[in-house]
Amino acid sequence: MSGFAFHEAFSRVGPDPVARFSGLPRYNFVFGHNDPAEVPADELAGIAAKVIREQGPTLAMYHLGQGPQGHRGLRDVVAAKLRRSRGMACTADDIVLTSGSLQAMDLVNATFIESGDTVIIEEFTYGGAIGKVQRLGANIVAAPLDENGIRMDALEAILEDLQRRGIRPKFIYTIPTVQNPTGSIMPLDRRHRLLDLSARYRVPIFEDECYADLAWDDSTPPALYALDPSRVVHVGSFSKSLAPALRVGYVVAAWDVLSRVLARKTDAGSPAIEQMVIAEYSGRAFDDHLKTLKAALRRKLDVMIEAVEREFGTSVELFVPQGGIFLWLKLPDHVDVRTFVQPALEQGVAFNPGPEWACVPDSARSHIRLCFALPDEDTIREGVAELARICFEHTGVPARRANIPSDR
Amino acid sequence: MSGFAFHEAFSRVGPDPVARFSGLPRYNFVFGHNDPAEVPADELAGIAAKVIREQGPTLAMYHLGQGPQGHRGLRDVVAAKLRRSRGMACTADDIVLTSGSLQAMDLVNATFIESGDTVIIEEFTYGGAIGKVQRLGANIVAAPLDENGIRMDALEAILEDLQRRGIRPKFIYTIPTVQNPTGSIMPLDRRHRLLDLSARYRVPIFEDECYADLAWDDSTPPALYALDPSRVVHVGSFSKSLAPALRVGYVVAAWDVLSRVLARKTDAGSPAIEQMVIAEYSGRAFDDHLKTLKAALRRKLDVMIEAVEREFGTSVELFVPQGGIFLWLKLPDHVDVRTFVQPALEQGVAFNPGPEWACVPDSARSHIRLCFALPDEDTIREGVAELARICFEHTGVPARRANIPSDR
Repeated sequence: MSGFAFHEAFSRVGPDPVARFSGLPRYNFVFGHNDPAEVPADELAGIAAKVIREQGPTLAMYHLGQGPQGHRGLRDVVAAKLRRSRGMACTADDIVLTSGSLQAMDLVNATFIESGDTVIIEEFTYGGAIGKVQRLGANIVAAPLDENGIRMDALEAILEDLQRRGIRPKFIYTIPTVQNPTGSIMPLDRRHRLLDLSARYRVPIFEDECYADLAWDDSTPPALYALDPSRVVHVGSFSKSLAPALRVGYVVAAWDVLSRVLARKTDAGSPAIEQMVIAEYSGRAFDDHLKTLKAALRRKLDVMIEAVEREFGTSVELFVPQGGIFLWLKLPDHVDVRTFVQPALEQGVAFNPGPEWACVPDSARSHIRLCFALPDEDTIREGVAELARICFEHTGVPARRANIPSDR
Repeated sequence: MSGFAFHEAFSRVGPDPVARFSGLPRYNFVFGHNDPAEVPADELAGIAAKVIREQGPTLAMYHLGQGPQGHRGLRDVVAAKLRRSRGMACTADDIVLTSGSLQAMDLVNATFIESGDTVIIEEFTYGGAIGKVQRLGANIVAAPLDENGIRMDALEAILEDLQRRGIRPKFIYTIPTVQNPTGSIMPLDRRHRLLDLSARYRVPIFEDECYADLAWDDSTPPALYALDPSRVVHVGSFSKSLAPALRVGYVVAAWDVLSRVLARKTDAGSPAIEQMVIAEYSGRAFDDHLKTLKAALRRKLDVMIEAVEREFGTSVELFVPQGGIFLWLKLPDHVDVRTFVQPALEQGVAFNPGPEWACVPDSARSHIRLCFALPDEDTIREGVAELARICFEHTGVPARRANIPSDR
């Protein structure tokens, strides 16, 4: 009887039910987890006590009594940070704080997309971004990438072809600064070219900069929003630069966009304590934290690259990232990584198969995304060795590991 | 040029854009704000420092590495609390933590409702609940209320009529314990009757108990979920009992419901620090806090009732709540409160007009909902006097205030 009345009443549309959480894999190279050792727990603890003692009573009010755009102090901090580090001329009024950049994406998508609409997305991208627009019934056109991000000649051809067919895409979704999964950074001239195409074909740009704080080189080109705020919706997050479980992200856009985003934000506000804490943990302390975090991530990246080259030898093509927490790699064309996702999981190795990070799944059938931020260095080495062993079992690749035939 | 490309790309469906936040009204009787003086800021501050210092590193992982249902410790605390105070036999496995009960409602609604579906809702209810199901394209059938909640004879007639017309409602949405806005508590016999109807007509029940902790009398009847978990989806929140800005709510239901709710929860987790803090602030401390809070709320309610009776005299009908933070009142039938919502706002008095809290707006044209939790006692007195003055200006009611003709 249990739940019987429910089955008859469930919506027939929407995603499939999820499975029960079954614990964490031993070798965890998935999600955008960060380095537990780099969370500034003691500073955050002290700050939390201070801000709750000082601002605690405001918790009695929805939105802290400061309106649906979120904690005013944090919006000021974010605006100053984006001016300083991304060249964006924005103020607190141009910002809506969200529950991570994922809620920001849901709200922006819902603001633009109706079922049957078309959006342009980088051919390899965050898998969740693909799923989110698909759930809204949008058609996806894949924009080809190279080591500098979207290929503008290809994008122009796509826009021209769509225009010829009378299709105006709702937006071009791009991760220009530390692209996910390739780790590329779009050069300035290409950013200008992208904005020219946006203007010529009257297509807004949806800029996702959730990894921009993790670029190895501090002198990255300005955000697309900085170059033309009139046609760019910018989202960012503290998930990658501070901690994902804090769930604090933001949308930066013109009011005609924000006023529609807010109309779709039906949660009566995003987490307040995190907003208070991050507002206080800004400026110098945050910049110092970023330096330490990036140094730690680069060490782990080096360890992973060394391990991958040792274990996979000549049978792997590496895309060395210019920042972030992911290594994107490619095995020979005849290897379909989907064949050993499940076997690897059963052996405690979790990785992201390329097809789930591609607009056209088969186009990344030989690709793998590995997150190197969470595991410690030994776990990275062991996990990559395990992965190579399992890969060989199912595909015959790599034929040699650590210069020893794999079948030994 | 600014934003021009956007206008052409916006979705044509969905809610209207919102207006800029223009600050708080002087006499603020709207929303479900709570009493700032009753937020246990110092305790929460100390606890926050402790849990962040202890659990800080887990913030580096999505879901704190504990899976999408949320902080395991808090789910244990919620299960124990619901067993103790609501008679619910549930465990951490039966609970999904959400960003307030509003996100819980969005997820449950999306799990059941397709456009064109029918849902049954109490004739007077939380305005947001009406808007949320309407946005999903559902048809609403209003269930008549009396001082004990839904009238079961009327509900049976509705279910019978719908069945005759071949319509199976997706659920019956009810706030049985401290109803919003009437403040009623459904007696035990009526709860059994409701579950019988649910079984007979095979219609699930969506139980919203976000105010249950604020019942004046601690011996309230058990939750509907406690009486039959097989057909009830239960949602609750810490917004009313602790602080709304914490945004911590929960869904309690069978796994076939939760697995679909989680599939629709696309935010990669709800706020973690609040979850850690509330998990620690449980048991004795929380119970003591509730006693103090309820005493403070009852004092404010008495002040408001006294003020309303003084200012509105015989021209008002009061529905004295059995708990919570709202006073629901009715003016004479010829009074349409919508005529002075805007004028009142311009004079700094914000109240909820009945029509926005009713499935059939005109059925509550003479009703007003006042939240008494936020303002201090003097502000309540002044605000109610202002409201009566403005009401008289626009409707001629009340003819006498404080036993003096209103036109003096």
